Amino acid sequence: MSIVPLTDFSRLCIHTITTKPWPIEEAAKRYSAAGVRGVTVWRQWLEGRNIGDVRRLLADSGLAVVSLCRGGFFPSADPAARQAAIDDNLRAIDEAAALGAPLLVLVCGADPRQPLETSRQQIAEGIRAVVDHARAAGVKLGIEPLHPMYADTRSAINTLRQANDMCDRLSDPQVGVVVDVYHLWWDPELEAQIQRCGRAGRLLAFHVSDWRTPTEDLLNDRGLMGEGCIPLRQIRGWVEAQGFNGFVEVEIFSNRYWAMDQQEFLEKIKRAYLEHV
Amino acid sequence: MSIVPLTDFSRLCIHTITTKPWPIEEAAKRYSAAGVRGVTVWRQWLEGRNIGDVRRLLADSGLAVVSLCRGGFFPSADPAARQAAIDDNLRAIDEAAALGAPLLVLVCGADPRQPLETSRQQIAEGIRAVVDHARAAGVKLGIEPLHPMYADTRSAINTLRQANDMCDRLSDPQVGVVVDVYHLWWDPELEAQIQRCGRAGRLLAFHVSDWRTPTEDLLNDRGLMGEGCIPLRQIRGWVEAQGFNGFVEVEIFSNRYWAMDQQEFLEKIKRAYLEHV
Repeated sequence: MSIVPLTDFSRLCIHTITTKPWPIEEAAKRYSAAGVRGVTVWRQWLEGRNIGDVRRLLADSGLAVVSLCRGGFFPSADPAARQAAIDDNLRAIDEAAALGAPLLVLVCGADPRQPLETSRQQIAEGIRAVVDHARAAGVKLGIEPLHPMYADTRSAINTLRQANDMCDRLSDPQVGVVVDVYHLWWDPELEAQIQRCGRAGRLLAFHVSDWRTPTEDLLNDRGLMGEGCIPLRQIRGWVEAQGFNGFVEVEIFSNRYWAMDQQEFLEKIKRAYLEHV
Repeated sequence: MSIVPLTDFSRLCIHTITTKPWPIEEAAKRYSAAGVRGVTVWRQWLEGRNIGDVRRLLADSGLAVVSLCRGGFFPSADPAARQAAIDDNLRAIDEAAALGAPLLVLVCGADPRQPLETSRQQIAEGIRAVVDHARAAGVKLGIEPLHPMYADTRSAINTLRQANDMCDRLSDPQVGVVVDVYHLWWDPELEAQIQRCGRAGRLLAFHVSDWRTPTEDLLNDRGLMGEGCIPLRQIRGWVEAQGFNGFVEVEIFSNRYWAMDQQEFLEKIKRAYLEHV
């Protein structure tokens, strides 16, 4: 298989958490100057801001708002916590709409005090409870399957097969999936399940980073594209074979990179994007 | 589902690495005094020892040798390294036979420099290269699928479905699978794939520990049974429903537990075994 390399930054999106030290104003200025064309905003970056102002700032910076991260975390053994999660997701949908984000990414959640199957049931209930609000707001909901190492507390949906199954179960065109290579690269079913996404028309977003050897932290040691073992270009080929031509989103949680000069890191991201994605 | 609790230690086996500070002589004495009936020996515990002497020591201590850990690590982008791995597995089989271990556990390996599918091909080739020697030695080979967080360097076989597929591909009665709850608990296919093992008569061993929240280290932060979220008794029920009545092997890698008094840890293991497995 021969996948054509990316030759410009017209599809490059960066998650604000990737350059965590930069507040939204700094990120907007720097991304824009670097030629980045899309941004996925994490909700913490909106704290203490007027969302309309942020929306204008990003538009004025030539940055498309690709998605808002993140909703989800529906399951809990405590019913009051489940209702609080639903309320919070309704707010997140409002924030996405106010920001002009067409997609809210769902990290679906899990509660280690209960069986995974119970958490999955509560995820389905949680999404059903907010999907009409999302429809009215014009915001899609993207189920992001998370790596099995996060099955205890972050998501009971750990493979793309499970995300597809959940979408089938919900059977709502407002709900789709987010493919993040970090979570899914190891799965021998990945290509087949991406094809299943394509057939169902539910592939909403594509996130990249890399898997480092050794990985020293379960959360914050993601690699820059090219410094790990994920077949990034091959997987991009699979999603594009299904018609996906949206943004390629760089989402890197890394104590190492957050500790370095962020402008230098941004330049590294751009080089890695052209060379390895 | 109602699974009968374990009420004695007749099926309790401990891996020597679980009580890492104890050399084999100390482990044999302590396990025996505690009423433990089986031991899985890690190869490091044989270094500098005469294996026949160790075999007699364990027999005299009333300990059945359940398995030898570990062979495998077949894949490499370097052909000389692949041959070295095969040679090492032949030695491991000899050691297992000398020790009286009926099973060599395979951590199959992976090389992040090459595609996972290439590593899987090399695993199949490696097992084929040693299986006749294993047969002649009376040693079974047990493929242990490892958690997907180890797919970069430790194993390209990350689900029980993949282990079953590999066994089908090899189609050799000398090769079976090892079910370790730590690696597999998150998989919604686990029960179905354990049933598949049962139908094929290839379920060779059962390892227990627990998944802690939060897990602070990818390798050495396993939990004692009951301190995490793995449905241990349910999974034991699944393997026993397939006729498995062998040892329940406690395999815990834990910097926390290795740092404590090992006799106290051993007593904790016994209590946790009765209460939670």
